[in-house]
Amino acid sequence: MTERTYNIAILGATGAVGTRLMSQLEESTIPVNSLKLLASSRSAGKKLTFKGQELTVEEATADSFSGVDLVLASGGGSVSQRFAPEAVKRGAVVVDNSSYWRMNDNVPLVVPEVNEADLQGHNGIIANPNCSTTQMVVALEPIRRAFGLRRVIVSTYQAASGAGQTAWDELVAQTEAHNAGEKMVANILPVKGSDKHYPLAYNLLPQIDVFEDDGYTHEEWKMIHETKKIMFGDKNSKSVKVTGTAVRVPVPVGHGETVYFETESNTGATSAGIQQALSQAPGVILEDNPKKQLYPQPINAEGKRETFVGRVRPDLENDDSFHMWVVSDNLLKGAAWNTVQIAERLVELDLVRVPVGAAGKFEA
Amino acid sequence: MTERTYNIAILGATGAVGTRLMSQLEESTIPVNSLKLLASSRSAGKKLTFKGQELTVEEATADSFSGVDLVLASGGGSVSQRFAPEAVKRGAVVVDNSSYWRMNDNVPLVVPEVNEADLQGHNGIIANPNCSTTQMVVALEPIRRAFGLRRVIVSTYQAASGAGQTAWDELVAQTEAHNAGEKMVANILPVKGSDKHYPLAYNLLPQIDVFEDDGYTHEEWKMIHETKKIMFGDKNSKSVKVTGTAVRVPVPVGHGETVYFETESNTGATSAGIQQALSQAPGVILEDNPKKQLYPQPINAEGKRETFVGRVRPDLENDDSFHMWVVSDNLLKGAAWNTVQIAERLVELDLVRVPVGAAGKFEA
Repeated sequence: MTERTYNIAILGATGAVGTRLMSQLEESTIPVNSLKLLASSRSAGKKLTFKGQELTVEEATADSFSGVDLVLASGGGSVSQRFAPEAVKRGAVVVDNSSYWRMNDNVPLVVPEVNEADLQGHNGIIANPNCSTTQMVVALEPIRRAFGLRRVIVSTYQAASGAGQTAWDELVAQTEAHNAGEKMVANILPVKGSDKHYPLAYNLLPQIDVFEDDGYTHEEWKMIHETKKIMFGDKNSKSVKVTGTAVRVPVPVGHGETVYFETESNTGATSAGIQQALSQAPGVILEDNPKKQLYPQPINAEGKRETFVGRVRPDLENDDSFHMWVVSDNLLKGAAWNTVQIAERLVELDLVRVPVGAAGKFEA
Repeated sequence: MTERTYNIAILGATGAVGTRLMSQLEESTIPVNSLKLLASSRSAGKKLTFKGQELTVEEATADSFSGVDLVLASGGGSVSQRFAPEAVKRGAVVVDNSSYWRMNDNVPLVVPEVNEADLQGHNGIIANPNCSTTQMVVALEPIRRAFGLRRVIVSTYQAASGAGQTAWDELVAQTEAHNAGEKMVANILPVKGSDKHYPLAYNLLPQIDVFEDDGYTHEEWKMIHETKKIMFGDKNSKSVKVTGTAVRVPVPVGHGETVYFETESNTGATSAGIQQALSQAPGVILEDNPKKQLYPQPINAEGKRETFVGRVRPDLENDDSFHMWVVSDNLLKGAAWNTVQIAERLVELDLVRVPVGAAGKFEA
């Protein structure tokens, strides 16, 4: 029997995540028959290299997806809104890194270490979660399995590249300007296209994405509802309470998170037990030794696929309550690697096929 | 009646806080008769300007404090341990910015907006709290007064200058090196004299001060016990539960804090009520308007004496629980300004005198 090989398309190939989708795919176990690079007309014609072969970026159209088996999409919400259904209609399975489809009841939202089983019965579109959510659930899931999980309070320390290559470039340019005694120019953060822009260099911005009416940012909203959907199968699950604050920090790559959590009571949770569960968990590297000053740091996590956890310790005044510090490369586990990892699992489980009639679920 | 004027000494005049003690004193209401600048032998001979007059830094000895009414100390723990009792013995009142005396039962730990009354009955030494504690209690106290306070969970985003001028300089040097593609050199952070040093530039360090045996850093320990002593008069008070994680971020000046708190139940706490209490509170500036993208930022807080609060909103799934985001200049309200403010209050309340017999309380 001949092994199946796959015709793959990357949609949004030229961004910070797009280029990493290519390198993660190069290093993956997926047997690639052909690779097509798709982007907006602005980027069409650019040359990129995959496995030593020069490829030319093409402008994405609905017909670009004919003959494609698997699409890795990182072109933003409106691009995925438009093209994911067209791809599915043409028989391609889409793993989508945008936020557009994540809350759709017909779309599984998947972090393989947590809810790989949700890939079964997909309808052609699988959503990749928000970067800050992904690393948090990778760290929380082994704790939930061992001791249950009632409550999460998170504060994020999010890198500039979470807002794309332009935000990363702007951070470096602002830092250089400030060091030279010049004025910092801000055109991207906190939100592209917003009324006001602020420098991130040597600063902190407690706004990621737009504000909701309830005073939370959309990033905070995502962390609440995506966590519930991934871990408990329902974006409004009452099985766990999740809340927090998302803050942008002047770091190029690597999100940090202080995660405070409460386990179920009477499950015997201790710091040692939690560390034990984390040390055996897939995708997690426990870096937790205060005596040796060992704890996760963004500069050490950059370029790695794992989620790093340290500073595990109990709240000294509240039962069943603990702190931990979680760091991961937001462009890899937070985006490109989780997307390619989902694709790997789809291949290994022989799920790269659109069920008959499924395309209709995504028609406008 | 002639107004009393004061002979003042600044101990540790040459550091990042020391120079700000001078500028805050220049701008204060305290009638200064004379100012003496004291430091280690290493800094003796340096010239600094106060109110247009050039002053020479002298090496601190026990006798330096003869004839001094008021000492503003920022020379570090071992310096304050040694010299504060000598100063008190010679009749000088010491406002100490180090951590050495803060937990001493004979020493009030004071943030004027919170517990000015604790200045009454002092014994000659008054302690200034840790920077991250000060701005938090300024923001929490008006909430406690209006709605009670049961629980606090804080995550800090602390600036390099909290570890002194050398840490600040190192951050800038590391950033320049990184931007130039050179190796970053780390000799100061996370803790001077520790076994390992890590770069802060473009990074996050979840360690401030040394680790305690229970896995908390000493900075986190300070935030717990100083908050209890300042707000409830007892470093082990059970009236409020406090916990958190302290993280160093690549910002030169201005600490940020996500503060999650629970009020007493049935006190009618709402975000609007909390915002109202904060807007009328001394030392607080409410910057909280999501529609206008208004929230506190370190680059706006630098050089200001106030504590800035924004992002006030309820936890959507837990009663009586709220988030806020607190920013202040760690070198001013977190250090120099709070010290000078205490001195101002001592002057206004006519408390710049050492009670008879008090010096004995600090003898080794």
